[in-house]
Amino acid sequence: MADTKIYRASTTAPVNIAVIKYWGKRDPKLNLPTNSSLSVTLAQSDLRTHTTASCSSSYPSSDSLLLNGQDQDVSGARTQACFRELRSLRKQLEDQDSSLSKIADLPLKIVSENNFPTAAGLASSAAGFAALVRAIANLYELKQDETELSRIARQGSGSACRSLFGGYVGWNAGTQADGSDSMAYQVAPASHWPQMRALILVVSAAKKGVSSTTGMQTTVATSSLFPARANETVPRRMKEMEKAIQERDFETFGKVTMMDSNSFHATCLDTYPPIFYMNDVSRAAIKVVETINAAAGKTIAAYTFDAGPNAVIYYLEESEKEVVGLFKAAIGDKEGWTGTRGRAVEANIAALYKVQAEASVAIGLLKEGVSRIILTGVGEGPVKTEETLVDEQGQAVSPK
Amino acid sequence: MADTKIYRASTTAPVNIAVIKYWGKRDPKLNLPTNSSLSVTLAQSDLRTHTTASCSSSYPSSDSLLLNGQDQDVSGARTQACFRELRSLRKQLEDQDSSLSKIADLPLKIVSENNFPTAAGLASSAAGFAALVRAIANLYELKQDETELSRIARQGSGSACRSLFGGYVGWNAGTQADGSDSMAYQVAPASHWPQMRALILVVSAAKKGVSSTTGMQTTVATSSLFPARANETVPRRMKEMEKAIQERDFETFGKVTMMDSNSFHATCLDTYPPIFYMNDVSRAAIKVVETINAAAGKTIAAYTFDAGPNAVIYYLEESEKEVVGLFKAAIGDKEGWTGTRGRAVEANIAALYKVQAEASVAIGLLKEGVSRIILTGVGEGPVKTEETLVDEQGQAVSPK
Repeated sequence: MADTKIYRASTTAPVNIAVIKYWGKRDPKLNLPTNSSLSVTLAQSDLRTHTTASCSSSYPSSDSLLLNGQDQDVSGARTQACFRELRSLRKQLEDQDSSLSKIADLPLKIVSENNFPTAAGLASSAAGFAALVRAIANLYELKQDETELSRIARQGSGSACRSLFGGYVGWNAGTQADGSDSMAYQVAPASHWPQMRALILVVSAAKKGVSSTTGMQTTVATSSLFPARANETVPRRMKEMEKAIQERDFETFGKVTMMDSNSFHATCLDTYPPIFYMNDVSRAAIKVVETINAAAGKTIAAYTFDAGPNAVIYYLEESEKEVVGLFKAAIGDKEGWTGTRGRAVEANIAALYKVQAEASVAIGLLKEGVSRIILTGVGEGPVKTEETLVDEQGQAVSPK
Repeated sequence: MADTKIYRASTTAPVNIAVIKYWGKRDPKLNLPTNSSLSVTLAQSDLRTHTTASCSSSYPSSDSLLLNGQDQDVSGARTQACFRELRSLRKQLEDQDSSLSKIADLPLKIVSENNFPTAAGLASSAAGFAALVRAIANLYELKQDETELSRIARQGSGSACRSLFGGYVGWNAGTQADGSDSMAYQVAPASHWPQMRALILVVSAAKKGVSSTTGMQTTVATSSLFPARANETVPRRMKEMEKAIQERDFETFGKVTMMDSNSFHATCLDTYPPIFYMNDVSRAAIKVVETINAAAGKTIAAYTFDAGPNAVIYYLEESEKEVVGLFKAAIGDKEGWTGTRGRAVEANIAALYKVQAEASVAIGLLKEGVSRIILTGVGEGPVKTEETLVDEQGQAVSPK
């Protein structure tokens, strides 16, 4: 009688927000970047993907992926590359140890849930592919470490490789044509600098901008300023940023974060036709961060923008009152202030009052344009969990 | 008895809008640029400064400048440099020819009027300094040609050197430390390509941005992408642009114009702290230009933005219906459509209808954010005029 057992393994994986941006592929097929990048992994209590990987001979013959209850296409080259590489590693194990179950070729059923609204426009592909790769690696009981798995996750979605680690994470661009040295590494664990916090201002975009895959290749092809960023600016800033993290130097961390976000969006603007991800509300967030830092006499808040108008503002726990308190007073009642973290922060009317004159237009734009806020901070990498999204009969179940 | 005669000479001078932007000084004192630039001189019937230079021993001992009825400070280094250089040239003439009146040391009274509202936020310093230098050169009967005078006007306001010529005008950055080779030159007269038109969308800015003098020096000091623009991108584009003008190749002219505007604003965004001149209304103008070109299947309209949110859109006379007609239909009733040129253009509802679906958000932003429009085109350089702004008694008079 054939083995019809349902094999299952589950994990959660975090979102990461880069402080040195990944933009531009030197090899689109292998997702090899033109430059190294660096990110902060965010706490999974606020933002995470929960994924169960399962396989069974009783499943329909083709692999499947269910995300937030919706069937996803798994025939794309990127998902296929992840499946193929992970299966190949399982096969090596099975070949070495005949006592292992032969599961490498069984159909995969992956079930995934995000704990944050898709409407937030947060790049969920990083957490998604990190969770997918980590869950299948668990299912296959692979011995590869996070660095080796990051090489696989990278092929699913570039920035996913950084979500395999917690804390402060680098992604080395590498120089090999086959991508063998293009992997993520931990710069420092979350425990090294646990005071790092992030305030995310979710900004409603009138329309979805250019997709990052299309956008970054147009930048590489047309921006005359891009080579200077990839070849000179980013390599220098990677070193500055790693040092700032090692030394817990927020002023440098913040300044380099802001400059790198601006540099990335500058190359988008220098693309032809130009790509705009920031809008007037995004710029209003920049203005308010500038007034907060001016009032503090030093950099205590740092903005960064991915391929969309949302502002992510890094700050240290000790500056919560000056940073989040002011934004809470400025933006007023919005979804997100009501959560555990949000309720804990008092609106800092006094601080707002001081910058009101200089930032009144910006404050008006934020009040109008921010649809919700998310308060989070640096967090851990993927965590194995017994909570499963596939039941004993192999059916998808809703998370508790 | 002393000579109390009122010496007078008048000129008009045009505005110019660059298609390769001047941004960055290698010598702030001499107004020497980091890169060459190129502009189109605009018709003086639409936009011009009218200036009368006069001098007399009967005047109060200090030089004066009245602009639009308001006394201006002439003690600044830039105005002083222009006065000093022009006086020195007059002195050389007087030294060579003793029959000439000794007027080089007489107090100067300059009276100037713009024919466009200051509220339009159009850079008026170029036309202003070009008119000032040209009027004093007329007063002093100097033999120097436009190229030589451009070296003087440049010291008043960099881009003023380009307003001494009509048509298509380059400004060579030069390499000499004393600026002796940093002068304007005519690429082609207006008559070479008289079909060039410009539609200016005046956008109300919530607040005046960073001044260009401050802004450009911050860019030079902090932007890591700026050297690539100044040293590589602009030199290449200067050649492409001059060739496009020689060959009356609007597609190349338009594409390079748009790319260079984007490149300039990209270096502003890469400045720390970042400088934003464009806003959501400016970007809406870009979007509409993109849809116009997509509908035409080629580049028939080209946007460019100076240090502010106003859009200048170049197009050829033959595309008036597709470009201006569509903008007129999109923007609706605004000041500027009522002038001679504006009335001649019919709102092109059919063309608007075709792009409505794709550009509806942009069209809404334009309707709301454009405060007035100006329709103009390529035009001639400064013109000597008998119409004086200083009467026989040396008093300022209003222009007819």
